[in-house]
Amino acid sequence: MTDTAPRPTLEAVAARAGVSRATASRVVNGGDGVREPLVERVRRAVEELGYVPNQAARSLVTRRHDAIAVVVAEPETRVFADPFFALQLRGISKELTAHDNQLVLLLTEGRDDHARVGRYLAGGHVDGALVFSLHLDDPLPGLIQRAGVPTVFGGRPGWSDGLRDVVYVDSDNRGGARDAVRHLVGLGRTRVAHITGALDQTSAVDRLEGFKDVMGDAGSRLVVHGDFTPAGGERAMRELLDRCPDVDAVFAANDLTAAGALRVLRERGRRVPEDVAVIGFDDMQPVAEQTDPPLTTVRQDIEEMGRLMARLLLHGDDELPRGTPAGVVLPTTMVHRASA
Amino acid sequence: MTDTAPRPTLEAVAARAGVSRATASRVVNGGDGVREPLVERVRRAVEELGYVPNQAARSLVTRRHDAIAVVVAEPETRVFADPFFALQLRGISKELTAHDNQLVLLLTEGRDDHARVGRYLAGGHVDGALVFSLHLDDPLPGLIQRAGVPTVFGGRPGWSDGLRDVVYVDSDNRGGARDAVRHLVGLGRTRVAHITGALDQTSAVDRLEGFKDVMGDAGSRLVVHGDFTPAGGERAMRELLDRCPDVDAVFAANDLTAAGALRVLRERGRRVPEDVAVIGFDDMQPVAEQTDPPLTTVRQDIEEMGRLMARLLLHGDDELPRGTPAGVVLPTTMVHRASA
Repeated sequence: MTDTAPRPTLEAVAARAGVSRATASRVVNGGDGVREPLVERVRRAVEELGYVPNQAARSLVTRRHDAIAVVVAEPETRVFADPFFALQLRGISKELTAHDNQLVLLLTEGRDDHARVGRYLAGGHVDGALVFSLHLDDPLPGLIQRAGVPTVFGGRPGWSDGLRDVVYVDSDNRGGARDAVRHLVGLGRTRVAHITGALDQTSAVDRLEGFKDVMGDAGSRLVVHGDFTPAGGERAMRELLDRCPDVDAVFAANDLTAAGALRVLRERGRRVPEDVAVIGFDDMQPVAEQTDPPLTTVRQDIEEMGRLMARLLLHGDDELPRGTPAGVVLPTTMVHRASA
Repeated sequence: MTDTAPRPTLEAVAARAGVSRATASRVVNGGDGVREPLVERVRRAVEELGYVPNQAARSLVTRRHDAIAVVVAEPETRVFADPFFALQLRGISKELTAHDNQLVLLLTEGRDDHARVGRYLAGGHVDGALVFSLHLDDPLPGLIQRAGVPTVFGGRPGWSDGLRDVVYVDSDNRGGARDAVRHLVGLGRTRVAHITGALDQTSAVDRLEGFKDVMGDAGSRLVVHGDFTPAGGERAMRELLDRCPDVDAVFAANDLTAAGALRVLRERGRRVPEDVAVIGFDDMQPVAEQTDPPLTTVRQDIEEMGRLMARLLLHGDDELPRGTPAGVVLPTTMVHRASA
């Protein structure tokens, strides 16, 4: 919510749309009681000027709902199957509840439902939105910007070029990946592989970049694609063993992927860490402690990410570093267990 | 949504509150743009008359949101820890999405937050509410009735006496419990115990009644209290073994409870089913198949319960049996595995 150019004002939006400031304000804050053609004109002016409501000012004047939407850009089955989301929601829930704000979780069956989520956000039902697990080409960011609700993203959005005033919280995915791969190289491993996450997400792309930072482009030969799920980790590990039977180390894009890879390694009679050292990412409990052997991994503080997203949305500018897009990037730490 | 007495009309509410029908309608449908003293007068009239908006009529006139709230009366940590809720939400999500309705999950840290949930429901953000896991003395039902949103409950509400037009979906908890206990007796077991669920919930009370139906009041000696969690099952099983070391059968109020009990039995060197036969309730996967030994249990179709709740809310009277309160009670079936 910081910017180098002066921020377009609500007055400018009203003038451009040819409506009163009061009408523009009502549209920006949900559109209740304004005729559709006027709503459309104001929305267009908002878009053309790149207007983003000043959240602090808005909250003083119009904070009526004391409710914050959370949108996870994954099908609800995934939201409940991957403990990552439960942890992030825990941090968000604690922070919102401490400020007596209602957590409104908008669940979907998949991307086809995102237009409906955009309509709900535009409907004036919440004071802001927390959005995470965005994928490339998802219409959500555009829908959210048109909805005009203050938003904080979880994870660096990959499409931030076209948007202004993007605020996000992320982990140091690239730095954490470098730490993991350097550790494997430091153990004397020479055929270090990487099982990626879903590469339409910046977290997966950044971890892959961290792998390449250490292994160079030559390392690409040992990159196989996963999707952040245990099943994806199993598939990728089988492919890797077929392609390079003497692989001696694997950096997996997250702990669930590593858990799948470990199952396949055991199935194929490889000892971990003697034959193949394995490192994950997340330090997700109970997964990381209960794999066989327990997993060496890159820890990110997922609950804290959620808490911080909520805090940024509620308190805005005060908490933010300068710069556009404004991101807060949390450090990662290595957690050493038996697998590497 | 059926009733024996004539249903009070919106006109009656308006007359009692001394406002126009239009004003009463706006308050009942969310209160946007009506001054607070009038809102208060209409709400009081709604309460005094026991007015419940006719959902079908409402949906034709004012269905603006295409959004349905889901409220689970448990802390969010529990919502994400107990697969029961994920399953029920799955059924709800599928049905709402099929009708292009947004699922709005209202999460809380606990009962202290229920007043805030009531405010959100009263705020005109959703067309209806699905509420489950109610506990006795929870203020939610009253708050929901005051909010004036059509509601379907998951599980028979224990407090239905004071409310009109209560609609719920439940499983045949009492009948299912009877089946389980009869099966244990049929195996020749003579010291049959019951580990209850949380007895401030009707599902737990009904399963206890089913146990007593078969074992009689004398069976009460072998009733110990659990809380539907694995930890509660462990605690109860320890208490049971201390109190009655020669117990030879346990009916646990749900599968998670049974899983905890099985761990303690193994720890204490009891063989299942040879020394102690164990039966659970739910047929929750993967829990019931992965216990050691796999669990004999009473299956209820949790996803179908969620789907049916959503269907009743969206389609109302057409789907409902006659009677007040109007409940749909789904049958249960025994699933036989190794533990009994």
